[in-house]
Amino acid sequence: MIKLNEKILSSVINKRPQNSYKGMFGRVVIIGGNINFAGAIIMATSAAVYSGAGLVTTMTSKANKVALNQSIPEAMYVNYKKINNNINLIKTADVVLIGPGLGTSQTSKNILQQVFNIIGKKQVLIIDGSAITLIANDNLQLPKANIVFTPHQMEWQRLSGLDIKDQNYLNNKVKQAELKSTIVLKSHRTEIYTNNNCFQNTVGTPAQATGGMGDTLAGMIAGFSAQFNQLDLAVAAAVYLHSKIAEELAKERYVVLPHQIIQKIPYYMKKYEKK
Amino acid sequence: MIKLNEKILSSVINKRPQNSYKGMFGRVVIIGGNINFAGAIIMATSAAVYSGAGLVTTMTSKANKVALNQSIPEAMYVNYKKINNNINLIKTADVVLIGPGLGTSQTSKNILQQVFNIIGKKQVLIIDGSAITLIANDNLQLPKANIVFTPHQMEWQRLSGLDIKDQNYLNNKVKQAELKSTIVLKSHRTEIYTNNNCFQNTVGTPAQATGGMGDTLAGMIAGFSAQFNQLDLAVAAAVYLHSKIAEELAKERYVVLPHQIIQKIPYYMKKYEKK
Amino acid sequence: MIKLNEKILSSVINKRPQNSYKGMFGRVVIIGGNINFAGAIIMATSAAVYSGAGLVTTMTSKANKVALNQSIPEAMYVNYKKINNNINLIKTADVVLIGPGLGTSQTSKNILQQVFNIIGKKQVLIIDGSAITLIANDNLQLPKANIVFTPHQMEWQRLSGLDIKDQNYLNNKVKQAELKSTIVLKSHRTEIYTNNNCFQNTVGTPAQATGGMGDTLAGMIAGFSAQFNQLDLAVAAAVYLHSKIAEELAKERYVVLPHQIIQKIPYYMKKYEKK
Amino acid sequence: MIKLNEKILSSVINKRPQNSYKGMFGRVVIIGGNINFAGAIIMATSAAVYSGAGLVTTMTSKANKVALNQSIPEAMYVNYKKINNNINLIKTADVVLIGPGLGTSQTSKNILQQVFNIIGKKQVLIIDGSAITLIANDNLQLPKANIVFTPHQMEWQRLSGLDIKDQNYLNNKVKQAELKSTIVLKSHRTEIYTNNNCFQNTVGTPAQATGGMGDTLAGMIAGFSAQFNQLDLAVAAAVYLHSKIAEELAKERYVVLPHQIIQKIPYYMKKYEKK
Repeated sequence: MIKLNEKILSSVINKRPQNSYKGMFGRVVIIGGNINFAGAIIMATSAAVYSGAGLVTTMTSKANKVALNQSIPEAMYVNYKKINNNINLIKTADVVLIGPGLGTSQTSKNILQQVFNIIGKKQVLIIDGSAITLIANDNLQLPKANIVFTPHQMEWQRLSGLDIKDQNYLNNKVKQAELKSTIVLKSHRTEIYTNNNCFQNTVGTPAQATGGMGDTLAGMIAGFSAQFNQLDLAVAAAVYLHSKIAEELAKERYVVLPHQIIQKIPYYMKKYEKK
Repeated sequence: MIKLNEKILSSVINKRPQNSYKGMFGRVVIIGGNINFAGAIIMATSAAVYSGAGLVTTMTSKANKVALNQSIPEAMYVNYKKINNNINLIKTADVVLIGPGLGTSQTSKNILQQVFNIIGKKQVLIIDGSAITLIANDNLQLPKANIVFTPHQMEWQRLSGLDIKDQNYLNNKVKQAELKSTIVLKSHRTEIYTNNNCFQNTVGTPAQATGGMGDTLAGMIAGFSAQFNQLDLAVAAAVYLHSKIAEELAKERYVVLPHQIIQKIPYYMKKYEKK
Repeated sequence: MIKLNEKILSSVINKRPQNSYKGMFGRVVIIGGNINFAGAIIMATSAAVYSGAGLVTTMTSKANKVALNQSIPEAMYVNYKKINNNINLIKTADVVLIGPGLGTSQTSKNILQQVFNIIGKKQVLIIDGSAITLIANDNLQLPKANIVFTPHQMEWQRLSGLDIKDQNYLNNKVKQAELKSTIVLKSHRTEIYTNNNCFQNTVGTPAQATGGMGDTLAGMIAGFSAQFNQLDLAVAAAVYLHSKIAEELAKERYVVLPHQIIQKIPYYMKKYEKK
Repeated sequence: MIKLNEKILSSVINKRPQNSYKGMFGRVVIIGGNINFAGAIIMATSAAVYSGAGLVTTMTSKANKVALNQSIPEAMYVNYKKINNNINLIKTADVVLIGPGLGTSQTSKNILQQVFNIIGKKQVLIIDGSAITLIANDNLQLPKANIVFTPHQMEWQRLSGLDIKDQNYLNNKVKQAELKSTIVLKSHRTEIYTNNNCFQNTVGTPAQATGGMGDTLAGMIAGFSAQFNQLDLAVAAAVYLHSKIAEELAKERYVVLPHQIIQKIPYYMKKYEKK
């Protein structure tokens, strides 16, 4: 298991070429946020935008449109019940993130299934939060795509069948291989299992232990995956940076809130970009 | 009557253990905010989140959903008319705060009664603002729970039957004992009557005399009660810190607004945490 | 004509007594904001809250409720078409401000007339913006109250019948006496005509010449009138401070926006309060 | 082709005369923002307000009203489906900007056509984003007005018929002459073709390559055109300043977001105003 350190950042975060345009930094579609969980989709979307994704479209409950627009005007909005009218948005995305605040209703499940039907094998599909629970509960078949799961330990138990006490390196690795996906197993020291690597986070703070942190991380992973080439390294860099920023902010805060991390992303990416 | 000082903070605000997760810092449910009083529920919710509560769910009028989501995305939302579909949220909460901006309509009263029916004896129930008035006016029977009342002097008169001029130490203490609850009697120098203790606040500023301060305090009490063990000390620490921050901010402001206090909570909790 | 200077601030802005509560700093009701002019009512409300008014209730179109709540949670909201259900709110107010973004429709006129019917002679009634135009156009009879008008030069022409070119000291003074009201005649160097005094502003900046400044000033006048004793001096202090802050901010800004002035009010009030 | 430098700012950005009022700094109407693209209209509106335009009215989908009001209260709102009730607003505007987030639906097209019917030959009409695509697709006839187009390269291909590879100086200049309009051809180093001049931007940063930058630039061009006399110089100054601010902010940020540029406009305008 490779211990992550600052080098993951400078090896992943490219210096942008002078002649850049937004199309070079990826199209991201983020799907989630039922009527009760607007905040989750706002935080995930904001994290993707502040991570530098070129274009971000958020598909969510229409009940969340106004709060989303006001919170992060840089993102476009689509009603998540109208995915069928917006299939091309998903087909042309580099990265699709589904799950933050999605919920586990029949509507949520339909949306997840629609995305599975549309997604292509070259796209990155990040599956977070309640989307993981939906897959586990209903034993949904995964589409062919570059899949990243971001479970916490209880969600990993549901998905992998491994009790939390049995979630050790070997068992996790075996399950990862079965799933042929990248697993971001969130905990005090998050572990990342990929086809080729296994990383462990080394930074982080108890001040991060608050609602919305997972949504924020998922958005950062989406933003990094959209911009940077090697998926497993991009995921690892996002995980590390998320906790690194939190650790820094916690030096003067008892609790660090997601939006505070989000606002700092561009500064830390600049600080650690490839020289 | 024990005069509060900074030691209440360092004795209450634990250093978080390295291996923390949000479930360790409490589940808080906050109920209130009719169509006219959205701000009250926004401020109470924000104060609980910034105080470090692990997970905060706010039950309010659906008319307030958007402003709540945008103001404090870290909180989840439930329509307060749908409590019956969300009984488990209340049953599994560590702390329930009811009252900020709740109003005194029949709807408000129904909601209060539903919460009284659901709440269990091991839970903390903080009763603020119009919820106090509802209880006093209709002589509602209190549920078995760890109850904290946060009346200002007029609300205390309604609840206790004590005229403001008769609200002295002895009379208040007698009424507290009858109510078997913690009483946070708000005034220029707020007094806290508990089963075992009696505290008096020693800090605060006239710059705090503005709308929304009570809602903010109630949210801080909820956040502190959710994280820290001894209820009466947690309440006292929240009361002290609320005024302490206001006093500091008032050094350069004629009036201190609630949201300004809220944003400073994590900094002051860090400053005063247990060494 | 008395030239205003910083002394108006230190003579008006009282040091708050230690034993303060919000009721001591006035109840303000602000009425305006049709569906097109939400911003006007948000800015007026914010200015009153940041000026230190004890309790602020805003009556506006229900289309503006969410933006108001999110922008200034410290204020309460009432649908301005339901004034008849909220007569007591107006009757118990110390200050009523009507006009910012009110518009000149029949609805607007009905609301203005209702307020005129309710208001009492001891209350302060500030009449701004389209409310002035409504009075002038329809020759509405003024209620008995302590009235403050805040016209710009064109509105003053409508109200007084004086062409802009004829708006000199003597003519304005005669019209003020007829109206038995305080006139805040807004221009590059705003003049204030009262029963006893005549003031001229001496500060201000062309960077203030932007939409929303009048709404902001009206809100400050409401906040000051609610807290400080002599109405004409309170009005003069608000006028002076509004421009003084703008002048300071303009040292490093080409244009000063209303919300930037608003946020600075508590700092400048502290700086200039009575010693 | 004239290379732009800081002198374009100090030659365009007038020092405001002491005796200013908002009417001197132009009336701007901004039209766009369908239900999916609220952010575009929020950013364009904010950029115009922060650039110092005297009065800004935004015509957009009513679905965007609340987010607009909250984000930029200084702007007035009109439902863009009710242009026919608000013809005078457009007729009396100094500058009309149409396009940010307008979309290409039949509704969008109707709105564009209505504006074309109303606009007068002395007015400035800025045509951005999907409005350019609508004109190109349907070969709409342009009204007589001082037109500014702000296409990116693909939109310029649609409008001019020039393939991106053929978009060189000479070809662009010929097409500009045919269109008798100012062309702001956006790219890494944006070029501006006018009847009399041809400018090339010399500043900018890859950190600008993110969604919403074009909307922001369009709003700045509207704000500058409303205040400053020579249209082609005003446009050039807006283009230069937009990138100049981004370049400065990018010194410590990996990605620069539109709202961050917007907030800095008044400071940079002050810094570079005519001495």
